[in-house]
Amino acid sequence: MPVLPAPTFDDVVDAAARLDGAAHRTPVLTSRTADARTGATLFFKCENFQRMGAFKFRGAYYAISRFDAEQRRAGVLTYSSGNHAQAIALAAKLAGIRATIVMPHDAPAAKLEATRGYGGEVITYDRYTENREEIGARLAQARGMTLIPPYDHPHVIAGQGTAVKELIDEVGPLDMLVVCLGGGGLLAGSALSAAALAPACSVVGVEPEAGNDGQQSLARGEIVHIPAPRTIADGAASTHLGAYNFPIIQRLVGRIVTVSDAQLVGTMRFFAERMKLVVEPTGCLAAAAALDGVLPVAGKRVGVLVSGGNVDLARYAGFLHG
Amino acid sequence: MPVLPAPTFDDVVDAAARLDGAAHRTPVLTSRTADARTGATLFFKCENFQRMGAFKFRGAYYAISRFDAEQRRAGVLTYSSGNHAQAIALAAKLAGIRATIVMPHDAPAAKLEATRGYGGEVITYDRYTENREEIGARLAQARGMTLIPPYDHPHVIAGQGTAVKELIDEVGPLDMLVVCLGGGGLLAGSALSAAALAPACSVVGVEPEAGNDGQQSLARGEIVHIPAPRTIADGAASTHLGAYNFPIIQRLVGRIVTVSDAQLVGTMRFFAERMKLVVEPTGCLAAAAALDGVLPVAGKRVGVLVSGGNVDLARYAGFLHG
Repeated sequence: MPVLPAPTFDDVVDAAARLDGAAHRTPVLTSRTADARTGATLFFKCENFQRMGAFKFRGAYYAISRFDAEQRRAGVLTYSSGNHAQAIALAAKLAGIRATIVMPHDAPAAKLEATRGYGGEVITYDRYTENREEIGARLAQARGMTLIPPYDHPHVIAGQGTAVKELIDEVGPLDMLVVCLGGGGLLAGSALSAAALAPACSVVGVEPEAGNDGQQSLARGEIVHIPAPRTIADGAASTHLGAYNFPIIQRLVGRIVTVSDAQLVGTMRFFAERMKLVVEPTGCLAAAAALDGVLPVAGKRVGVLVSGGNVDLARYAGFLHG
Repeated sequence: MPVLPAPTFDDVVDAAARLDGAAHRTPVLTSRTADARTGATLFFKCENFQRMGAFKFRGAYYAISRFDAEQRRAGVLTYSSGNHAQAIALAAKLAGIRATIVMPHDAPAAKLEATRGYGGEVITYDRYTENREEIGARLAQARGMTLIPPYDHPHVIAGQGTAVKELIDEVGPLDMLVVCLGGGGLLAGSALSAAALAPACSVVGVEPEAGNDGQQSLARGEIVHIPAPRTIADGAASTHLGAYNFPIIQRLVGRIVTVSDAQLVGTMRFFAERMKLVVEPTGCLAAAAALDGVLPVAGKRVGVLVSGGNVDLARYAGFLHG
């Protein structure tokens, strides 16, 4: 794969133009209860209302929109057990190109079905004995397909950055922006937008307590790898930041904090009870940090990224039962 | 209580002006999945995002805004086991007047708490041996307070009508408007707005199968009383239409249909899974009729009222488990 230049805010602007009409401009919701509890003015950017239920559509669609004619002929390939799989499958369908998705054979049936439902070819692997990056690279090579990994890609980062661009365009400057952190696609893209549009805004990443590799990486000044963390925030269960993502995070993100699974459940219940929103565990990371006293938000205008709402209903019901 | 004139669309316009800045202008959401399933273009007016979680805030706030100085001094009184109780309590608090709410002593603790939390005085009664209308009328008389019943009141009707006014102002003319029906406050108000703003639009009311007194009333040409129906749509479990409401419904509503509790559960799951919305059972009435083939919506632009999202989380989790 050719080395692409690091993404800039210009790429985010380009992504926003290409996503116009294809992605939803998701609503920004507010909550008097949340504001009263925190003393802050919180703006929730609701990417759970995005197409296929998560921000991932933005990066996938933009990355494919940058394909040249030859890339379009051969199609796109990715590996993902989560929202990126469906995002690539849907974006490829809209672009009229082939998509191959490498997914663990024990991924939830609903996710395999949804990915196939968008017309993606699913190739399964054994996550305990095989390496998805290797399988992906080998298949991409053999088939001439372009690999678009879930986060470590400049166009994916730029696409994800469009959510915060929309947020600041709509509500004006922010004092703080809080974003969930897995591999760093959303956080790096969001930081590019915040730096350009609200330079005084401090950008905070939020990881699950069980998987704080991002926090460790910032502290050490290099990408730290950890074993796969056990957390209900499956979308942030990555083991290391991306090579494109880390330098941006290092430069533009002031702080990375963590929240517990119990805090995520409490936040999921808050969203359902008070804001009438279904939010998946990973989508609660940023809000949990803002609502639970983890961050000094009082008196500030704070943007909170709600990253997605894709959660199996039975599992979700279990969380609500508490 | 003096007899007030029947409400007109002018009252809805007045209500909209008074609600401006006090009520949320709730979002209108769309769903490609819902459109693909029905062949219609559906516009969901999301009153589950309204203040206190349901459209009831509109009517309560507007009715109180019409109080004169003497009425304000004495305060407001109502009876309700549901969203109207909280709506009156909150609206009274915002107006700085006293509120007394007559509620069944076995109402859910959360609802009693929420009503008290807004500063309302709660008086409980035994719903099996006492009559709330009588208690309400007696107390209002004794205390000089103004009784604002849950639906049978022209200002309540006019206030509820503002939701559909917003909907049509935002999305343009509709071919069909589908609204849940209990006592008829929301349906009558909605019909006033639709008749004025989209005269070609057919207005449909949707009742729970177990309590189709509205359907029977339209057929017979008079208000039919039924025993309290057993349905999960607790907000539409009324036993008869209001005296102010029925003539408006008779004049402007073309048709009343019913849906089963099972259809309500299916729709609740659809809202959670596909639209990431928490909607209470009553709030699913209109959508169930639009989504489940009860109404001929194909090829039409259809407004669907989502009336509220207040449902105990454990109960909600039970519905999602299916």
